[in-house]
Amino acid sequence: MKNARIGVADTTFARVDMARFAIDILKQYYGNVEIVRYTVPGIKDLPVAVKKLLEEKDCDIAMALGMPGPHPLDKQSAQVASTGLVTVQIMTNRHVIEVFVHEDEAKSDEELYSIAKNRAEEHAHNLIKVLFRPEELMKDAGMGKRQGFPDVGPIRL
Amino acid sequence: MKNARIGVADTTFARVDMARFAIDILKQYYGNVEIVRYTVPGIKDLPVAVKKLLEEKDCDIAMALGMPGPHPLDKQSAQVASTGLVTVQIMTNRHVIEVFVHEDEAKSDEELYSIAKNRAEEHAHNLIKVLFRPEELMKDAGMGKRQGFPDVGPIRL
Amino acid sequence: MKNARIGVADTTFARVDMARFAIDILKQYYGNVEIVRYTVPGIKDLPVAVKKLLEEKDCDIAMALGMPGPHPLDKQSAQVASTGLVTVQIMTNRHVIEVFVHEDEAKSDEELYSIAKNRAEEHAHNLIKVLFRPEELMKDAGMGKRQGFPDVGPIRL
Amino acid sequence: MKNARIGVADTTFARVDMARFAIDILKQYYGNVEIVRYTVPGIKDLPVAVKKLLEEKDCDIAMALGMPGPHPLDKQSAQVASTGLVTVQIMTNRHVIEVFVHEDEAKSDEELYSIAKNRAEEHAHNLIKVLFRPEELMKDAGMGKRQGFPDVGPIRL
Amino acid sequence: MKNARIGVADTTFARVDMARFAIDILKQYYGNVEIVRYTVPGIKDLPVAVKKLLEEKDCDIAMALGMPGPHPLDKQSAQVASTGLVTVQIMTNRHVIEVFVHEDEAKSDEELYSIAKNRAEEHAHNLIKVLFRPEELMKDAGMGKRQGFPDVGPIRL
Repeated sequence: MKNARIGVADTTFARVDMARFAIDILKQYYGNVEIVRYTVPGIKDLPVAVKKLLEEKDCDIAMALGMPGPHPLDKQSAQVASTGLVTVQIMTNRHVIEVFVHEDEAKSDEELYSIAKNRAEEHAHNLIKVLFRPEELMKDAGMGKRQGFPDVGPIRL
Repeated sequence: MKNARIGVADTTFARVDMARFAIDILKQYYGNVEIVRYTVPGIKDLPVAVKKLLEEKDCDIAMALGMPGPHPLDKQSAQVASTGLVTVQIMTNRHVIEVFVHEDEAKSDEELYSIAKNRAEEHAHNLIKVLFRPEELMKDAGMGKRQGFPDVGPIRL
Repeated sequence: MKNARIGVADTTFARVDMARFAIDILKQYYGNVEIVRYTVPGIKDLPVAVKKLLEEKDCDIAMALGMPGPHPLDKQSAQVASTGLVTVQIMTNRHVIEVFVHEDEAKSDEELYSIAKNRAEEHAHNLIKVLFRPEELMKDAGMGKRQGFPDVGPIRL
Repeated sequence: MKNARIGVADTTFARVDMARFAIDILKQYYGNVEIVRYTVPGIKDLPVAVKKLLEEKDCDIAMALGMPGPHPLDKQSAQVASTGLVTVQIMTNRHVIEVFVHEDEAKSDEELYSIAKNRAEEHAHNLIKVLFRPEELMKDAGMGKRQGFPDVGPIRL
Repeated sequence: MKNARIGVADTTFARVDMARFAIDILKQYYGNVEIVRYTVPGIKDLPVAVKKLLEEKDCDIAMALGMPGPHPLDKQSAQVASTGLVTVQIMTNRHVIEVFVHEDEAKSDEELYSIAKNRAEEHAHNLIKVLFRPEELMKDAGMGKRQGFPDVGPIRL
């Protein structure tokens, strides 16, 4: 596997240090990657953060991790942030793996923590596949993969 | 019919391998097309995937297949993804046929599978028409065509 | 009146051949215009279609005709399409007259047909005014003009 | 005060000739401004209209006046139009003062007329301040200014 | 700490002079910064205001402070404004710290004032961290930081 430079952008707003889980996976399984971390206050600060990681820090790909709150305004902020993240990708022709965990996806702090950890870890693996192992993603096309929750699996007739 | 290079982007999130149905149609009916497939984790990864297919893999046109979940957040993700797909098209002046099947369009797994298969196949035909046979689309203008469900047909007074 | 090249983009999804009504008006009343028609599957395919009409077919202006369905997802698709149509206009500095008729604007097929026909025809006249007769639009500023329904007229105190 | 060229874009859809109120204020209070008016059918035609005013008519600033209807689809159209107006501004680095009056802001035609007149006039003054008298706006920062309704004023503890 | 030029954009619509609180913090704690203030009528005027601060006034970073009203249309305006602020950032590769306080976040004028003051002050500190002290933000990653309300803190299992 070639060397790669991976940007990891996250927030102080989130209630779980999701980036750490993602970085642990990247270091443990894919040793020869270089990681550039960038923490910003909230999810709406993420689009420019990842753009700077890709363009000014020469990252080949990035992750954007955030934890939107449970209120309608938080959903609106998430939409603004996601739209920005998509725009950054099509401006740079580089992938940004969005890892958002909404606080109301879980019924308890324990569950929220568990979803956040699992989703960050699963998407760290996904990031490597997008960058280096596209054939593994293609093998899983249409397989009902999930991150943060168990896979629902493909429909079998 | 001239040769063409067709990008097919899909996801591991989807519960049906829709790209396979589309590719089967493209190969069976339109032999001299070349297909470049690109699988990503989720629908918000599709805009940059198709942009790369169009610009880095020199595809003449692309399909973007995905299966958004049934929750309000999934609808929001679909809107973000669709907005990105439209932006990619107007940045590149090339068409991207969006094939999204929402999980709550169907009442059962069997129906969901059937909608997904039919919509992917119908849009594979549409893609070829957009690229090579615009007169066939013009003939069907205002005819109430549907993909995934039976055509509703034109209003006849 | 100078010659003009007018792009007319429409869909196979619509249940009424609205483009025909628009083109009939353009030909009947404004003989020396040249029309380039472009039919695509659905409304989200319209933004790139009109961009190609403006840039690759050298149209001076375009119409984009579509008939979104009655469901919330159709409203979302209409928003994505309209946003794209506005972006195309500000990228090219050329007008695109959007003619969308939502299926739930009418209570019957007959009414839907009537709205679609009238709106397409009225906007064909509008297109000519935008292009050649801006003083006629200025005379109607704030006059409560409608297309598809009777004018509501200005507020008179 | 230096000379300025001011673009005024409005619609035939609106039920009040708001642009006239704005132009009257501009002429009465700020004599040495030049006004270029541009009327289009509806609010979604405004973004490209103001872009053309700024770029092709060399306007220093513009107003965009419109009166969205009371239905959910009208709100959606207003969002599309506003998003386009913001994009035009950040593409050109010039201000566009949006003056939208929603039909359901008022309970009667009389009130609607009154809101429209007042908002157009107040924003005509604002436009001049943005262009020539920024210190007057700065003096009013956080003062709960409104247009179309009485100022709510600042919170005083 | 190096010198920096900080743009502060705010509105006359807001009912609290939030910019003053932010500027007081910047001057009190970070003496060698230069501040360029720019007041506009409403939040939808903020995107171009910050773009001009960044590009025409050579600011290294900016704040955008606003106070959207309590109605659905105000939420829509906030979304349009936020989307524009994100776009400005990714066009310029510079951060813009959005400080929006929604009137319905508080139950009384006193509380609204208090949230606005605290959020503006906290984000003034954040702005300096983004610009000069990224390691302090990284230390707080995933710590459930809030502005305007007490921190919720990280999930501890």
